[in-house]
Amino acid sequence: MPPAPPFLAACRRQPVPYTPVWIMRQAGRYMAEYRAVRTKLGFLELCRTPDAAAEVTVAAVEKLGVDAAIIFADILLVLDPMGAGVEFSAGDGPRIRHPVRGAADVDRLAEVDPAALGYVYEAVRKARAALRVPLIGFAGAPFTLASYLVEGGGSHGWNRTRGFMHADPGAWDALMAKLVRAVGGYVNAQIAAGAEAVQLFDSWVGALAPGDYRARVLPHMRALFAAIAPGVPVIHFGTGTAGLLEAMRAAGGDVIGVDWRVDLDAAWARVGHDVAIQGNLDPAALLAPVATIRRRAAAILGQAAGRPGHVFNLGHGVLPDTPVDHVRALVDAVHELSAR
Amino acid sequence: MPPAPPFLAACRRQPVPYTPVWIMRQAGRYMAEYRAVRTKLGFLELCRTPDAAAEVTVAAVEKLGVDAAIIFADILLVLDPMGAGVEFSAGDGPRIRHPVRGAADVDRLAEVDPAALGYVYEAVRKARAALRVPLIGFAGAPFTLASYLVEGGGSHGWNRTRGFMHADPGAWDALMAKLVRAVGGYVNAQIAAGAEAVQLFDSWVGALAPGDYRARVLPHMRALFAAIAPGVPVIHFGTGTAGLLEAMRAAGGDVIGVDWRVDLDAAWARVGHDVAIQGNLDPAALLAPVATIRRRAAAILGQAAGRPGHVFNLGHGVLPDTPVDHVRALVDAVHELSAR
Repeated sequence: MPPAPPFLAACRRQPVPYTPVWIMRQAGRYMAEYRAVRTKLGFLELCRTPDAAAEVTVAAVEKLGVDAAIIFADILLVLDPMGAGVEFSAGDGPRIRHPVRGAADVDRLAEVDPAALGYVYEAVRKARAALRVPLIGFAGAPFTLASYLVEGGGSHGWNRTRGFMHADPGAWDALMAKLVRAVGGYVNAQIAAGAEAVQLFDSWVGALAPGDYRARVLPHMRALFAAIAPGVPVIHFGTGTAGLLEAMRAAGGDVIGVDWRVDLDAAWARVGHDVAIQGNLDPAALLAPVATIRRRAAAILGQAAGRPGHVFNLGHGVLPDTPVDHVRALVDAVHELSAR
Repeated sequence: MPPAPPFLAACRRQPVPYTPVWIMRQAGRYMAEYRAVRTKLGFLELCRTPDAAAEVTVAAVEKLGVDAAIIFADILLVLDPMGAGVEFSAGDGPRIRHPVRGAADVDRLAEVDPAALGYVYEAVRKARAALRVPLIGFAGAPFTLASYLVEGGGSHGWNRTRGFMHADPGAWDALMAKLVRAVGGYVNAQIAAGAEAVQLFDSWVGALAPGDYRARVLPHMRALFAAIAPGVPVIHFGTGTAGLLEAMRAAGGDVIGVDWRVDLDAAWARVGHDVAIQGNLDPAALLAPVATIRRRAAAILGQAAGRPGHVFNLGHGVLPDTPVDHVRALVDAVHELSAR
């Protein structure tokens, strides 16, 4: 049997020849190849065109030399077959045409037939066939999806979302349960199509008090992890989660993804060394000179201390004005500096 | 000598008959009395009219029964005499007409003569004369002021600010040093005018990696704390700081203010029980029914465990659509449930 690819080995805390690295939003606006495709296709159109989605997925891997691909898609796609009305306008970010503001709105959301997102699975199949590194599927986690539904789009502080949760916990739990069913089916269909790992993006869960996470999110996350097909590593990612790490770990996941706002060594000690960890360079550090980037990569590798189970990544998506050469320099630095 | 007011006693970790409470942004849009004043005066005009600023400061205390007043002002006022061009437009939030994008912009910022903010000190004098509870003065902390200067206003993620810091640490340190001088003089003049405590709002410092805080913020905060007139309790507040607590404590302050995204007991253990703590109800919890609010207040008081040195507050400013009755219910609950 050939050795597992370093990315999958690290997710399973097996020894690796070097620390594997991939970059959140590695196929994105900072890359000329991606911008060229986007002159021909709108964002949603690109998501819904399997050949093009697979092409940008693979191109990013080839350009950067990263150890994993992530299928080009968006966490909000799953909300469209629920009837939420998802829109992406240039510059303004996502909009939800029919926000969820009460129990009746929750009831109105449709159950998702996973087949409605067949274009994603088709992109997964096409990308997988063209790749020499593992392919990650992904979905938004229920809290983060709920936060877009309640706010009607992005938000500075997700205050309305927390207000909804506090004011009507019953409706909140019904919403979360519906999202767990939708995300579970969606993720399993990506796995069936060939995704070799999955990342759950609970990008905005750091807005919550730990007690509210434990009461109103953790049970739903446990149900979701239980529903995901076994054998495929799951990365459980969030930002601003320095107060939530133990609870996120208790919820589930083979790899806990952390952002830069907590020291990697402190985070790993808190979630326990019996789980893998992903992270955690500040994406804005890629705006610094290459020498600084190499120094920052070395510092994070030093915090990981060569333990098995570290997947290097940024703490959140690469910023649009990042020089591609700086991202390549980071990938090279991680590989060089971690070589066993 | 009469006993110290509970708020000041708690800041000094002395015994109190009940846990004192005040509410960030307690004089604000959620309150009819404030909105009435704002029909006559724009936001900046209100800040610059000492009689009116003192009036809304005092009215909030009388309406809510809180244990401290905080002078009505804005953290960005100090940037105007620096030549940054501060504007507040209805709905859009603050704007900086001359953002700081490089070393030359830092050099162009003027040193602040504290006398330029005389209208604030006049409001402090007038409010103090009318109050029967202690009056808190305040200022934005240098990082948070720098973040508005660099971004040109508010921001979702403060990416540009961190990019500036990473790309040109020398210009960043010069900017921070200039802000330390401005804030130090401003705070001391508020104290001279009668402020009995001071809160430094490092509202957005939670955007930083702990290592960057230690290298690029902590030394400047130490300089600022050293410059503040002794004898007056200083509250060192930030949001999203669950990864930074030990470093913020090392920077200084008699009271560490935390938001709801970390458990109060965990936060207090991390900063040490030899410093007071302020917080930390989720402002969105005030949108829940009063019975829920009382339960949440009890939970936080339980985490504080009756230790001397707890000042109750929200984790950030009260939200504009909060019912005033809910805020009063919170204040009453804190007083009742904590009575020794």
